[in-house]
Amino acid sequence: MRAVVYKGAFQVAVEQVADPKIEHPNDAIVRVTSACICGSDLHMYEGRTAAQPGIVFGHENMGVIEEVGAGVTTLHKGDRVVMPFNVACGFCKNCERGYTGFCLTVNPGFAGGAYGYVAMGPYTGGQAELLRVPYADFNALKLPSGTEHEDDFALLADIFPTGYHGAELAQVAPGETVVVFGAGPVGAMAAYSCLIRGAAEVYVVDRVPERLQKMKEIGAIPIDFSKGDPVEQIRQMRHGDGVDKGIDAVGYQAIEPGKTSEAPSAVLDALIQIVNPTGMLGIPGLYVPSDPGGVDPHAREGRLLIPFGKLFEKGLSLGTGQCNVKRYNRHLRDLIIAGRAKPSFIVSHEVPLNDAPTAYEKFDKRIEGYTKVILKP
Amino acid sequence: MRAVVYKGAFQVAVEQVADPKIEHPNDAIVRVTSACICGSDLHMYEGRTAAQPGIVFGHENMGVIEEVGAGVTTLHKGDRVVMPFNVACGFCKNCERGYTGFCLTVNPGFAGGAYGYVAMGPYTGGQAELLRVPYADFNALKLPSGTEHEDDFALLADIFPTGYHGAELAQVAPGETVVVFGAGPVGAMAAYSCLIRGAAEVYVVDRVPERLQKMKEIGAIPIDFSKGDPVEQIRQMRHGDGVDKGIDAVGYQAIEPGKTSEAPSAVLDALIQIVNPTGMLGIPGLYVPSDPGGVDPHAREGRLLIPFGKLFEKGLSLGTGQCNVKRYNRHLRDLIIAGRAKPSFIVSHEVPLNDAPTAYEKFDKRIEGYTKVILKP
Amino acid sequence: MRAVVYKGAFQVAVEQVADPKIEHPNDAIVRVTSACICGSDLHMYEGRTAAQPGIVFGHENMGVIEEVGAGVTTLHKGDRVVMPFNVACGFCKNCERGYTGFCLTVNPGFAGGAYGYVAMGPYTGGQAELLRVPYADFNALKLPSGTEHEDDFALLADIFPTGYHGAELAQVAPGETVVVFGAGPVGAMAAYSCLIRGAAEVYVVDRVPERLQKMKEIGAIPIDFSKGDPVEQIRQMRHGDGVDKGIDAVGYQAIEPGKTSEAPSAVLDALIQIVNPTGMLGIPGLYVPSDPGGVDPHAREGRLLIPFGKLFEKGLSLGTGQCNVKRYNRHLRDLIIAGRAKPSFIVSHEVPLNDAPTAYEKFDKRIEGYTKVILKP
Amino acid sequence: MRAVVYKGAFQVAVEQVADPKIEHPNDAIVRVTSACICGSDLHMYEGRTAAQPGIVFGHENMGVIEEVGAGVTTLHKGDRVVMPFNVACGFCKNCERGYTGFCLTVNPGFAGGAYGYVAMGPYTGGQAELLRVPYADFNALKLPSGTEHEDDFALLADIFPTGYHGAELAQVAPGETVVVFGAGPVGAMAAYSCLIRGAAEVYVVDRVPERLQKMKEIGAIPIDFSKGDPVEQIRQMRHGDGVDKGIDAVGYQAIEPGKTSEAPSAVLDALIQIVNPTGMLGIPGLYVPSDPGGVDPHAREGRLLIPFGKLFEKGLSLGTGQCNVKRYNRHLRDLIIAGRAKPSFIVSHEVPLNDAPTAYEKFDKRIEGYTKVILKP
Repeated sequence: MRAVVYKGAFQVAVEQVADPKIEHPNDAIVRVTSACICGSDLHMYEGRTAAQPGIVFGHENMGVIEEVGAGVTTLHKGDRVVMPFNVACGFCKNCERGYTGFCLTVNPGFAGGAYGYVAMGPYTGGQAELLRVPYADFNALKLPSGTEHEDDFALLADIFPTGYHGAELAQVAPGETVVVFGAGPVGAMAAYSCLIRGAAEVYVVDRVPERLQKMKEIGAIPIDFSKGDPVEQIRQMRHGDGVDKGIDAVGYQAIEPGKTSEAPSAVLDALIQIVNPTGMLGIPGLYVPSDPGGVDPHAREGRLLIPFGKLFEKGLSLGTGQCNVKRYNRHLRDLIIAGRAKPSFIVSHEVPLNDAPTAYEKFDKRIEGYTKVILKP
Repeated sequence: MRAVVYKGAFQVAVEQVADPKIEHPNDAIVRVTSACICGSDLHMYEGRTAAQPGIVFGHENMGVIEEVGAGVTTLHKGDRVVMPFNVACGFCKNCERGYTGFCLTVNPGFAGGAYGYVAMGPYTGGQAELLRVPYADFNALKLPSGTEHEDDFALLADIFPTGYHGAELAQVAPGETVVVFGAGPVGAMAAYSCLIRGAAEVYVVDRVPERLQKMKEIGAIPIDFSKGDPVEQIRQMRHGDGVDKGIDAVGYQAIEPGKTSEAPSAVLDALIQIVNPTGMLGIPGLYVPSDPGGVDPHAREGRLLIPFGKLFEKGLSLGTGQCNVKRYNRHLRDLIIAGRAKPSFIVSHEVPLNDAPTAYEKFDKRIEGYTKVILKP
Repeated sequence: MRAVVYKGAFQVAVEQVADPKIEHPNDAIVRVTSACICGSDLHMYEGRTAAQPGIVFGHENMGVIEEVGAGVTTLHKGDRVVMPFNVACGFCKNCERGYTGFCLTVNPGFAGGAYGYVAMGPYTGGQAELLRVPYADFNALKLPSGTEHEDDFALLADIFPTGYHGAELAQVAPGETVVVFGAGPVGAMAAYSCLIRGAAEVYVVDRVPERLQKMKEIGAIPIDFSKGDPVEQIRQMRHGDGVDKGIDAVGYQAIEPGKTSEAPSAVLDALIQIVNPTGMLGIPGLYVPSDPGGVDPHAREGRLLIPFGKLFEKGLSLGTGQCNVKRYNRHLRDLIIAGRAKPSFIVSHEVPLNDAPTAYEKFDKRIEGYTKVILKP
Repeated sequence: MRAVVYKGAFQVAVEQVADPKIEHPNDAIVRVTSACICGSDLHMYEGRTAAQPGIVFGHENMGVIEEVGAGVTTLHKGDRVVMPFNVACGFCKNCERGYTGFCLTVNPGFAGGAYGYVAMGPYTGGQAELLRVPYADFNALKLPSGTEHEDDFALLADIFPTGYHGAELAQVAPGETVVVFGAGPVGAMAAYSCLIRGAAEVYVVDRVPERLQKMKEIGAIPIDFSKGDPVEQIRQMRHGDGVDKGIDAVGYQAIEPGKTSEAPSAVLDALIQIVNPTGMLGIPGLYVPSDPGGVDPHAREGRLLIPFGKLFEKGLSLGTGQCNVKRYNRHLRDLIIAGRAKPSFIVSHEVPLNDAPTAYEKFDKRIEGYTKVILKP
């Protein structure tokens, strides 16, 4: 089959690779219909990880069941499904409590597995024609057959649940006021999720006009941090008050207002300033414990200088970590089916699998509006 | 001052009564600008309670601070405020945990107090020109000055929070499917609250075409129980499936599909049928422990025959009780201010205080579309 | 292998039956070392259910892995394990949220499956030498090898988690006051669980002196309902106050104080009286939707007359349903291992498998102190 | 009256000061019977804060009502009471949600007030014969009359709830494994609270033999960090595994194993290492946003270098901030009354008020076993 193969820094190619096979009775093989490129794929693409050439990329996958193992109970050839980016067993101490992003079974020695990602286990990615799905009854979410909502459903693999996870970590509740840092795909989905959950006001901080415009369209309040300190802007709009909750959808590659170099704790710093005492921070991030490209020795080890005394004085709480997609994808799917959520407004491009190399390049450079690309094998 | 005084079954009059005075340092006197008539006022109006002539009605009150006692800290003459229908102290064992509907201080011997209601303590109602508000710092919620959103804010005294309470008792969460029985003011606000909280599908059962039409307009799915068993209708629309959660906004005066006499457990029965195993029921009700007008001796003592074995088999949970308004009114207010909630779509009539007798009569008979009336002293 | 086979009302026999086999790649075969007789086995034994002769009884099972299917990942021959009485798939809509007692996969047409129980699916019971465990990675909880804590661990299959479930449904929290109705195995475990969770006072209502004595020994406060209305007794001990929470570990075979015939809503009635406003009821029960032996036509359909008006006036909540064992068994196991819980104080007898018929008879008659029997195949 | 007055670094004196008076209708005057010295008093005593001479110390106060203002409803002369160290209004946005440690009313410009503490509002301390208690109905918790449990109840003002708060922030649940850093009064109460809540294993890290011995006596597992890296010690005892939850009862004056100088993030660092993925950290602290005595410029501004990438990778959550005493003191009181908690095991000395200067000196130097001192005016 054809697949997107990592060849080295800033290089991917569409190549022939071996078809995946049923390796375990609980496996299923999925014929991929949509596979998104994720911002985190760019970490590997840019050579900023330990990823070695040869990896097949792709952890945001949906498609149609092609074949199932002897132990699969609820899936059949022809079922349309979307897979969480997490690979999870369903029965370990973490999975049984819903922490499928921290499965203890599928990636021995580490808590959590994923498709097509460095250090996340031996699971080939889905930017390909076919995908092997382990523990398929657990990891595949069934969708209505047909082709409706294809792009909306494709976002259930990662970005929509990950944004929602930010709102959940911050326990955003009806009537609350929230700030979301970052209006990229995760930030946009976080803001969208806050609105779905009934937030009264959602401020979204970014500097890309198109992104801010989109946030305005969905009912959020755009804050352009290139126009001045976002903390001050929000405080002024709120007559001196802060906000109840905050979401960090930027992570360690944050840039301080008015600067261009990375300042990995800039967003955390701003959140601790603008969120009111007793508030909560949801941090879908991403932050990493090892970043060869970090701006200083501490950053390279994932150590950040944080105003912890202030955080404590305000009695803030925070939640972090990659999303447990399975905790949210069923309900988010049902919102899509009911016509009450339409997350695909963030999809900028649909391209054939063969055009992946160009798509990666343009997405990496953020040119021509490339912000969320779905490959169509 | 003028006030709506209960004169006996089916009789109220607007009469001169003594002005309220500061009786305690924490009291405030409010000049009433809006006071709603509540469906529960009709229980007294119809002579179906132990209410004695002379009571001034009115527990859904808003207005402007006229005077404050020496112990009041945060309120000043001229502040625009809305009061929860509950009178609560703020410091007893129940209030301190947020159960302000079950205050142990304000109505000795009973858990809970209210304005202008039989057996709810010595608190004169607000269908009048002036209202005494005890523990005013605790019981008055400040509103933006002016007259904007007057009717929306007036609904914060009871109906909007009470409907929301139904959704909270059922723990309605984003993506879930809910049925609400009753599309009167409480049911309409419950359905509206479910949608605010991100429910995927909200079925609302009633038989009044205007009410059902309104439910459709806000995005709910109307079910006309005069057209057939609502349980069957929903099950059919859901291809045999039930719903995740259920809300009973009808209470003990329920009527079975196809019948006209009261069947006090009809709604509970239907909810237990249609809500899926592991589901939850939120019951803002109302149910009462003593109902002189009950259809049989059991009903007169508030005893209902309930399919408890089925409820248990399905592992259902349920929550009941009058609303702790203060738990919700601040956030709901903020949704109104932000333009994200506009509950006043249920208000049918605004009338001068002097027209209260006619308004009561028409509301009681449900004629001329009288469903939610706000008196304007 | 030998197994306890139901032969008809009041008759069981130990007979040779076919050995269980791996039927699915996720199955495991367990060599049973301990299998408890449960009070609910007596429902079948007494002929009070639709159970047909031929059923192998036993849903409280532990033992050692004998063989695993090709899809089993984490279990190996020789592993010591205990199985929840629920059979569950681990991946359906209910299992993924932790509601393993309401699995939608293992018993088509019904929410929930179990071993050796009428209407709970085709799963042979474990009062036998061998047991087939479906979805074994999910359904078997590993224990430390050896023989230590054998009886404590055996209670993890049902009774200890079921009692704990009562405390969880009532959300019993540190410092609270609780009443538990029933000091049989479930009630005793519920009281014990309340104490583990830090309750301040735990009243336990029963009339069997030995049971009440045991409750006193663990630190609970025994209430003998043969000595007078338990509600009055507790209220008097608490100087007129009620309690925060209540647990019903009696169910539909309740008997009113001073009477001998069944009064299926007697315990619910008492709970609604004695639990304070805003309180919660945890109801591990059992209640059933169909009881051929019920005292009247309503009882035979599981319909109970409940003081619902009073329950509503007090704003009570309640949770019901059979226990989702897997939600609790891991943590309860760890309490046993750490020496902080020793539930086996309720075990009255250990008998060889062959003595099952006599054990059933004595347990059913509650003679010779037979209250909790563990069969040792 | 006599009171403990701060005179400057390392100096307090017992002096005559003016008696407190009713200043507001909701005030009460309490005749102090017990007032503890807190570790946080030493921050001021050591001159490490902005405290000016003249402050009367004392925020852990209990006594008997001497006089009440005209607005006080539930308290009467002679009532025995204990006051949370927080001064709170009971009706602001934070108090109404239970965040009484972050009251927006009593200390304008800051979230939170306290007695006798720098920057916490104009509330004279209780290391004195009399104490003025604002919003007395809200801030005074009634106790059984008499003198029983005096020292246990005195700890309800701060240390017992603060330790419990650590367990609550970490959401310690039955059967879980916890590490507590610090076995001083807060750490000891945190460990004790974890056991009350049903934790399976509680590791407590300190280096003072007497403290560790006491932890062993209550059922915790002492870890002496002077004997080696506590993270390694725990991991070894747990066969390579970490723990579910962690509590930091040390704060910014932490010292690294094997060193003597302060390392303000040492405990956070260790917690992030030893707590398992998906775990939670409860941080009663203390951390401060400004510490003139900090080891480096960052520490002086409360900025700490934290392994945030690792925290994120593990998906950890954390909660911080001073305790909202009122959220816990009622239930903890009831545990004391029921004989199920006896926190006074940590009290080392009871001394007359006049001996306060010596007691402060010895406590500050931690000599003669001075770890928790109660002054008896």
